[in-house]
Amino acid sequence: MREIDVADLDDIARGAGILGTGGGGDPYLGRLLAEAAITRHGPVTLVAVDEVPADAVVVPVSMLGAPTVGTEKLPNGTETLAALRALEQARGISATHLVAIEIGGMNSLVPLALAAETGLPVVDGDAMGRAFPEAQMVLPTLAGIPASPMAVADDKGNTLTVNAVSNLWAERIARAACVATGCSVYTADTVMTGAQLPDGLVAGTLTLAARLGAAVRTARADHANPITAVTDLAGGVHLITGKVTDVHRTTTGGFGRGGATIVGTDAELRLSFQNEYLLATRHDEVLATTPDLICVLETDTGEPVTTEALRYGNRVTVLGLPCDPRWTTPAGLELVGPRYFGYDCDYRGLPR
Amino acid sequence: MREIDVADLDDIARGAGILGTGGGGDPYLGRLLAEAAITRHGPVTLVAVDEVPADAVVVPVSMLGAPTVGTEKLPNGTETLAALRALEQARGISATHLVAIEIGGMNSLVPLALAAETGLPVVDGDAMGRAFPEAQMVLPTLAGIPASPMAVADDKGNTLTVNAVSNLWAERIARAACVATGCSVYTADTVMTGAQLPDGLVAGTLTLAARLGAAVRTARADHANPITAVTDLAGGVHLITGKVTDVHRTTTGGFGRGGATIVGTDAELRLSFQNEYLLATRHDEVLATTPDLICVLETDTGEPVTTEALRYGNRVTVLGLPCDPRWTTPAGLELVGPRYFGYDCDYRGLPR
Repeated sequence: MREIDVADLDDIARGAGILGTGGGGDPYLGRLLAEAAITRHGPVTLVAVDEVPADAVVVPVSMLGAPTVGTEKLPNGTETLAALRALEQARGISATHLVAIEIGGMNSLVPLALAAETGLPVVDGDAMGRAFPEAQMVLPTLAGIPASPMAVADDKGNTLTVNAVSNLWAERIARAACVATGCSVYTADTVMTGAQLPDGLVAGTLTLAARLGAAVRTARADHANPITAVTDLAGGVHLITGKVTDVHRTTTGGFGRGGATIVGTDAELRLSFQNEYLLATRHDEVLATTPDLICVLETDTGEPVTTEALRYGNRVTVLGLPCDPRWTTPAGLELVGPRYFGYDCDYRGLPR
Repeated sequence: MREIDVADLDDIARGAGILGTGGGGDPYLGRLLAEAAITRHGPVTLVAVDEVPADAVVVPVSMLGAPTVGTEKLPNGTETLAALRALEQARGISATHLVAIEIGGMNSLVPLALAAETGLPVVDGDAMGRAFPEAQMVLPTLAGIPASPMAVADDKGNTLTVNAVSNLWAERIARAACVATGCSVYTADTVMTGAQLPDGLVAGTLTLAARLGAAVRTARADHANPITAVTDLAGGVHLITGKVTDVHRTTTGGFGRGGATIVGTDAELRLSFQNEYLLATRHDEVLATTPDLICVLETDTGEPVTTEALRYGNRVTVLGLPCDPRWTTPAGLELVGPRYFGYDCDYRGLPR
């Protein structure tokens, strides 16, 4: 158990942005949100997964939508609490802990902001070990834990509660409501007991994000290589260093979708994304695929570059980081493998 | 108070199809649904608005979606009860009465089917005095009665509960969920007390539908004119008798939209629709507009022709029937007048 204060947020946002593999929302906005809440209400208690009582009621809260919209359409600040209360009422529970549904720039910090506001502790972990674009793409789905009831709140004061027959239907209905209300909503769903957390979470990812963020910051201060600082800590392989020469991006169906080309000194890498970077190919050779993490960093600074921020001329380095091993099981790949997203290739492990 | 049995359904379906002004769903399907329920569970009690106790809890139930889809995608039979139970749970109430949200072929009979199943009485009336395509287009909106919480159930077993800041937002969110789940869902919403019914309902429309349906049937049996039988009972004016020479129809945004041309002996009438017939023009002259009822009947038989069933070659007569006077107030026209639907004309009363 430790406390997260305003001074910790910069590192967490940076590290979560790296682990968010291009998605999970803008780290800058997430940091502002959490900063404002902690400044007003005081620091947040972080507890490790093995410190959570078996009968705890752990509620993930997150933003759902297209990050391309999320960067322009700011929350009014009441959404996450409204979603939490709607969920508590629908299910007849009181949350004892909050947790991140994914590690991403915004969505790792959304629970911290709500935790400051409510005084609830936050569990150190998340339900993906990275970010994915769709709500059913969580370890609880693999563990048979329902997303429903899923509470959704928008910036206008609308809330809805979805009781779906599957986590995929919860995603579809929530996504449709998200698009109808402006492509950026906040959700509370996938309630877990403390006993379910080992199956439902990747443990320790908030701490990992903080360490990654700190490593990059320290490397910069020491005039060391911030990219090496990331791979030294998180493992992973170097895919390319180069310049972004092309980005195409559309906001459709509640997602930011598109692709990008990065030209290096002797190779060209193509990235495909749906909120998150999902596929990296070099001259038609598949180099890395979802569910492994494809992370785009500014070469000079090590700052993460999200899919909605990537633009022509960015000097970037692309890393491949291994995902949680539960994602590369047959059930995991069915849920989040490249074929689910329509890419005509099988998953292949990262090059060595 | 009287009973509705299977023998009454044919007349009600026909009459409601006429008053449904082309929408409200297929009268044939509605009749089958109510027939099956009443055959299994027994007749339904119909009570007049002035017989309902002031503290009664009156719940409208209905189909929401595109009738073009509704004719092919049949309900599984559990949706309305699922919607009612979800609403009761969300609001902490028990329904004492059911009522139709609109008079239309399907939606006047959906409450009868659920009433047979639950044993609840049905109030003789509806919240429009016709059918309209969107959920907020009800007299309760004019009376300040919220649609929320609105419970929605689909054929797959998904339910959701919408708590919207306005009846228009309830429509938008429910419509998005409707489209996501296959364009045909069932809803329970806009709960009224008995005391609110005079403001929220057009009284007596189920009885009126039964009388209209009987008048058409009797006229046919007597070799009299079934069209005249309608206007003798319901008033209204004759707009054209002719042949349908063109229909264009698309299913977009959860609605069936389009237009049709009817050529008579000396004139040509153009109809525009969004689920319901909303505008009738003759050689660019506006003859009739929403909220007045534009009713298309088979000339020979007096059977109503819905917007999704209208096709080339139909021999039809188009009638204009006056709407409930609350719809032609400024607030009413803002909600359901021709400009709301994007037609570039003001409301004009029916020709005399």
